[in-house]
Amino acid sequence: MHMYRIGIDLGGTSIAAGLVDGSRRIVDKLSVPTNAPRPMAGIADDMAALTEELLARNGLRREGLAAVGVGVPGTANRENGHLEDANNLGFDDEPFVSVLEERLGLPVRFGNDANAAAWGEYQVSGSREDSFVMMTIGTGIGGGVILNGKLWDGVNGAAAEFGHMTIRYDGAPCTCGRAGCFEAYASATALIRQARERMAAGRDTLLWKLCGGEPDRVEARTVFEGAAAGDGACRALLDVYTTYLAEGAANIVNLFQPAVLCVGGGVSRAGEALLTPLREKTAKRIYSKNAKRNTRITLAQLDNDAGIIGAALLEP
Amino acid sequence: MHMYRIGIDLGGTSIAAGLVDGSRRIVDKLSVPTNAPRPMAGIADDMAALTEELLARNGLRREGLAAVGVGVPGTANRENGHLEDANNLGFDDEPFVSVLEERLGLPVRFGNDANAAAWGEYQVSGSREDSFVMMTIGTGIGGGVILNGKLWDGVNGAAAEFGHMTIRYDGAPCTCGRAGCFEAYASATALIRQARERMAAGRDTLLWKLCGGEPDRVEARTVFEGAAAGDGACRALLDVYTTYLAEGAANIVNLFQPAVLCVGGGVSRAGEALLTPLREKTAKRIYSKNAKRNTRITLAQLDNDAGIIGAALLEP
Repeated sequence: MHMYRIGIDLGGTSIAAGLVDGSRRIVDKLSVPTNAPRPMAGIADDMAALTEELLARNGLRREGLAAVGVGVPGTANRENGHLEDANNLGFDDEPFVSVLEERLGLPVRFGNDANAAAWGEYQVSGSREDSFVMMTIGTGIGGGVILNGKLWDGVNGAAAEFGHMTIRYDGAPCTCGRAGCFEAYASATALIRQARERMAAGRDTLLWKLCGGEPDRVEARTVFEGAAAGDGACRALLDVYTTYLAEGAANIVNLFQPAVLCVGGGVSRAGEALLTPLREKTAKRIYSKNAKRNTRITLAQLDNDAGIIGAALLEP
Repeated sequence: MHMYRIGIDLGGTSIAAGLVDGSRRIVDKLSVPTNAPRPMAGIADDMAALTEELLARNGLRREGLAAVGVGVPGTANRENGHLEDANNLGFDDEPFVSVLEERLGLPVRFGNDANAAAWGEYQVSGSREDSFVMMTIGTGIGGGVILNGKLWDGVNGAAAEFGHMTIRYDGAPCTCGRAGCFEAYASATALIRQARERMAAGRDTLLWKLCGGEPDRVEARTVFEGAAAGDGACRALLDVYTTYLAEGAANIVNLFQPAVLCVGGGVSRAGEALLTPLREKTAKRIYSKNAKRNTRITLAQLDNDAGIIGAALLEP
């Protein structure tokens, strides 16, 4: 009994729900479009319908569920259960947990989506460590912090905004209104921008060939492909990019000193080509060079499933 | 019984010990020079002698002490009780706690000195909050992090090195070997450097008068004095300085979102002249501008006593 949980990843584009078993694996998964913006009631109805369908097609009763957890694209106020400041959904201060509990007749837990994903990676990492910081590198840079075995999301649910740490005073403009933020230099978006700038400077790079002569088609992985094929310009781009990434990673280590710094998000799919330079450059920058023990940098394992698994495993 | 504790602030220059009562106040204080470098045995003897003298002259028995705590200038490995990487003392991996417990016949707790000071400020702040970050601005910038009501010092005791967070990529060189660290722009040392650079650029500032025509005598407070007297150059210096400080403070808020960010160290003695611009500039830079609740920035209360009180109150 109570072996199963449901995790829901509520995004701006789609609502993905998964049935998670006692081994922390997704055994079934469904999704529907979010169709945002629309009122909370409709989204709650869809989350309830996804839950019912997952139960029905897996021959489970409602009583067989230990919990339903939701990762939300905004600030999860865990004191009053309100979803605050979720721009992608057009929500400002929705009584999220109570509305959904009423629809479902089940206890609901929620947390910020990046925090939930970090929690999922921590839970499946098999680590016995009590501290784990996840840095998710995609369109922006987000993350989550686990300390003393618990998710730390701050006084307002908004902690771990790693992307919005200035690493270059007076530098490139950021979507948050500041200049020089970490994500303006080390997100996938930033790498793509750096690649396009290089392409604009000359047609001598393999990038032109790899994106079929259309700079709009260049992706973060295109640069990794070019570098793997030995292209000097792509290698130089990655050298600069991983240096920026290491600056931010070393800042995180110097502030949190977690047992593990786990790197996830789209860019982390580059694997060792990212991990090796990141480890080397971070090791040179941390303050605790002489410590008997230092933060281990690892790659995330769950890819897009982290959000669902982490949401399912959220604690009350 | 067990109302009293002894806190020891073991510094590179002096060993200061205080008798701390049940109201978290220092009721008596003594100090001797550290005379570093010398072997751990001699330093342990001095700490034991200070403890005995504090007990004797306050009519207390050893049994009247709940604990002895020591703040150390290095990495406190709380798993094995070793003091690691304490350059100022010339110690690398001393079995600190066991040596001192043997000398004292009392349970000993220890922690990094900046962390102990943060813990002291948290304990006396009267705050019921469970999260509190202290940023200590002196020669460098150090600090301590309290989350969920507990000191978080990382997997190796070296967390909260706020000074060694790059805020200006490729910027001013730092003592740690990196460039552009927060403390290279926002420590007292940095403010003094900025003031001397301004003085070198022209004798038109009040700074020249305030330091008697000797740039070597300029201190952080000299700049605050000049600004208070209306000097334009000093005001401009402080405007730049508090901007750098706010960049780092906003980074800390975006990462930790503590209930309180407490500012201590020598520069914090400037009081409102520091706090007001720091609050205004930080508020503009944080990512959680729309949150229902945000980090409150406060001034430290204990000044130099924070280290002794915090050490006395350290938990096992």
